Amino acid sequence: MSDGSAGRRARGGGGAARRAERTAVSIETARYISRNIPNYEVLTPEALEIIETNAETLLAEIGVNFTDNPAALQVWRDAGADVQGERVRIPRGLARTLCATAPGTFTQHARNPARNVEIGGRNLVLAPVYGPPFVRDLAGGRRYATIADFRNFVRLGYMSKWLHHSGGTVCEPTDVAVNKRHLDMLLAHMTLSDKPFMGSVTEPSRAADSVEMCEILFGVDFMREHTVMTSLINVNSPMTFDGVMMGALEIYARAGQACILSPFIVGGAMAPTTVAGTLTQVLAEVLAGVAYSQLIRPGAPMIFGAFVTSIDMNSGAPTFGTPEAALITYGAGQLARRLGLPYRSSGAFCGSKLPDAQAAYETANSLNMGLLSGVNFMLHACGWLEGGLVASFEKFVMDADQLGALHHLARGVDMSENGQAMDAIAEVGPGGHYLGCAHTQANFKDAFWRSDLLDYKPFETWEDQGARDTQVLAAARVAKMLGDYQQPPLDEGIHQALIDFVARKKEAEPDAFG
Amino acid sequence: MSDGSAGRRARGGGGAARRAERTAVSIETARYISRNIPNYEVLTPEALEIIETNAETLLAEIGVNFTDNPAALQVWRDAGADVQGERVRIPRGLARTLCATAPGTFTQHARNPARNVEIGGRNLVLAPVYGPPFVRDLAGGRRYATIADFRNFVRLGYMSKWLHHSGGTVCEPTDVAVNKRHLDMLLAHMTLSDKPFMGSVTEPSRAADSVEMCEILFGVDFMREHTVMTSLINVNSPMTFDGVMMGALEIYARAGQACILSPFIVGGAMAPTTVAGTLTQVLAEVLAGVAYSQLIRPGAPMIFGAFVTSIDMNSGAPTFGTPEAALITYGAGQLARRLGLPYRSSGAFCGSKLPDAQAAYETANSLNMGLLSGVNFMLHACGWLEGGLVASFEKFVMDADQLGALHHLARGVDMSENGQAMDAIAEVGPGGHYLGCAHTQANFKDAFWRSDLLDYKPFETWEDQGARDTQVLAAARVAKMLGDYQQPPLDEGIHQALIDFVARKKEAEPDAFG
Repeated sequence: MSDGSAGRRARGGGGAARRAERTAVSIETARYISRNIPNYEVLTPEALEIIETNAETLLAEIGVNFTDNPAALQVWRDAGADVQGERVRIPRGLARTLCATAPGTFTQHARNPARNVEIGGRNLVLAPVYGPPFVRDLAGGRRYATIADFRNFVRLGYMSKWLHHSGGTVCEPTDVAVNKRHLDMLLAHMTLSDKPFMGSVTEPSRAADSVEMCEILFGVDFMREHTVMTSLINVNSPMTFDGVMMGALEIYARAGQACILSPFIVGGAMAPTTVAGTLTQVLAEVLAGVAYSQLIRPGAPMIFGAFVTSIDMNSGAPTFGTPEAALITYGAGQLARRLGLPYRSSGAFCGSKLPDAQAAYETANSLNMGLLSGVNFMLHACGWLEGGLVASFEKFVMDADQLGALHHLARGVDMSENGQAMDAIAEVGPGGHYLGCAHTQANFKDAFWRSDLLDYKPFETWEDQGARDTQVLAAARVAKMLGDYQQPPLDEGIHQALIDFVARKKEAEPDAFG
Repeated sequence: MSDGSAGRRARGGGGAARRAERTAVSIETARYISRNIPNYEVLTPEALEIIETNAETLLAEIGVNFTDNPAALQVWRDAGADVQGERVRIPRGLARTLCATAPGTFTQHARNPARNVEIGGRNLVLAPVYGPPFVRDLAGGRRYATIADFRNFVRLGYMSKWLHHSGGTVCEPTDVAVNKRHLDMLLAHMTLSDKPFMGSVTEPSRAADSVEMCEILFGVDFMREHTVMTSLINVNSPMTFDGVMMGALEIYARAGQACILSPFIVGGAMAPTTVAGTLTQVLAEVLAGVAYSQLIRPGAPMIFGAFVTSIDMNSGAPTFGTPEAALITYGAGQLARRLGLPYRSSGAFCGSKLPDAQAAYETANSLNMGLLSGVNFMLHACGWLEGGLVASFEKFVMDADQLGALHHLARGVDMSENGQAMDAIAEVGPGGHYLGCAHTQANFKDAFWRSDLLDYKPFETWEDQGARDTQVLAAARVAKMLGDYQQPPLDEGIHQALIDFVARKKEAEPDAFG
């Protein structure tokens, strides 16, 4: 895999960029999913009411902490909450009322308008893995992630048909200073892809940098009226909102940019061991966090997040693709819809160290529940390995391929005359076969989802070709995709302005590590 | 893996059997699943009505073929059908009316009453892979299956906690004559396991042998009143019922034994490429087949079957775990419930040649849809590989482990006071953690499903222990389970009578192969 040198190439003048524009391959990206299938709901109306009442009780009687953030405490005091120290107790009904100004659906704009995504309603937008400090590939094994890896993941995301979103920290570029890597990451998303992306949240100042870079990319006027970033704000569960994350939230909300307000739950550690108890806490946390965003700016786009895993009570390790996480994911979707907010959950979650059968069982369990639970924004939809410690190149393309199946499942059942196929059944009749009939000829191209990766060959052919397992097939696909990659065109002036901004910011302060 | 020599050991006298009884380990088997979660339904009431009306149109206007079976044609004629040649056209409503005498739920008895299963309603009974001529394991690779392999699969099934049923042809013992292998297979299920099992369907005479062996095992009187076998009757889709399969069905129905009436559909070949068209044909086939069983014996227990895969239009290979198959599986469940019949579909389906990530993605997709679609009897729930050509030892235990997750998911959400966990949330409070709290201590043992196979260890530990992937872990588990296996006790007289029956039958005719 080659180092990402898009920035440097362009810096040499307009020639490279113009060449890129002339030769750019048109990458096919599927439209975000619009479900034509029902949501799967595990909670009865009575259960939902109990959980909602209990969440209000938690907010009113136990309260939540807003730490290292005196201004937030004042905002809450002014809104009518009972604030003692850093503890904020929110009267029954207040948080839900405040949440009502957050939109049920919003558009996140991409620099290529064909890649805009509509987040909310019956839609599902898919974004890649977020956060791993390590990467793994078949040739190089497991190692610390670098900015070169980061750029390659952005390229793979751009090339992945079923991925609608470029994501954010697809891996941590550990070879770049902590206080500067957000600049390189954003530059990569902005220049190596034309899909929508996420902003930095690790410091309020980095959120501000993200907004500034978007002003360069999209223009200040456009930014004022449009949402161009969706960023990830974690709650320190249980029920703690720290100053850094809330500082980033405040900047994004004021700029009209979207945030996912996401409790981060390892069940049994950050929440009770039970499904109903976890859902109650998740709802209380989302209510408090989204309400706060609306106090900062009514109408700021917010997503009801729920990152949920179980814990292995023997080793303390988080576990993925488990039935308890599925029940919580289904239930949280119901709570989000009753609150009128877009919903983020699920992903290509797994605990496995390798992109093997364990990884795939756990991932498929998670992806299926994500589709059926009504998730609107699925972060980590591909590439996640080893409990999120590792971004895997092979698993990225393996998962991204499976996302195609979600698109086809979401189509639901075509009940048109062609779908009913009565003429075909009559034509073929008892004992016949459908391969040659007119209806099959007319429909076969789009009839079935077909993997671009998995092996459907007869045993003998497969064996002759090296008896390759999925990981080996995926490694070949990664190499092919990166080889075929061509940078999407970008206005040369904007490109240069982004590069200059990053350089200026980097020069302004010394490197910080760790 | 050692050859299965249970029969020979016991033949030496009562000592071995008594020893087995004394030392038998009590194998923990989970009760069949009783769903406390809703079924997932993709078809609207209007769509269901269209499909049902179309299916009746097919039966009345196109009809079905009953081949090589003049007696069946007469039965249909007497029932009011229009019979021309082998084509049977069934007047609108007749088949559905006839189906009404089939029970909605029935008990299949096991020789150990603790292993009885209730098939129908909200239950899900899990049975292993059926039919592969090949086996595969990590040490020996892919090879023709033998009776020794067969016995080992029965042992693994007996030892698998989440498997409720011993199945039928867990692999084809190709080293035993075609006309005699059913005897060895039944003997293995009856003596090496005490879980319920399936009878032979490859010739009417073999179905009769199955009934006779059950009369020895359960007693003639018991057999007269109880269902002790559930056997698999495939329809030659489209819409053809051949004399051999129907002959077996007739024997089982007359003996009050259960059958799965199962269209065998590779979409695009044996049915139209569309979901609605396939569902229409499946429904028509099940209506005709179950109606016929009720003409043979009203009240005979029957299961609405649907074996559905897609076809890869490039290679012609069947594909598994696909979204189209999922939609058909969900829809067929709705049709089965409206018909008031237990429902069989889904399984650990995959097309992969190895128990790798492809196998696990495809399998997890299938298992999840099986649970949510309301399947009552899931054949092929573990061990299926390479489109059903191969029974894999490693995949058997990998899948069987995943079946535990289905049990936990089916529990649904506990809304009791303990489930709501309000005291725990109040006790821990903002910023705390739940690991040590009283509620966690009281609940952790049963709170989360935990795999008995997958790796949850930290990376360093896992690496120190050999960096094993799932297949390697599974191979170790297979060896351990077969090493720990102890034969369940069986009355010595019955055991000897079964052995004598098999020997007598085998002597009565020459071996036939192929």
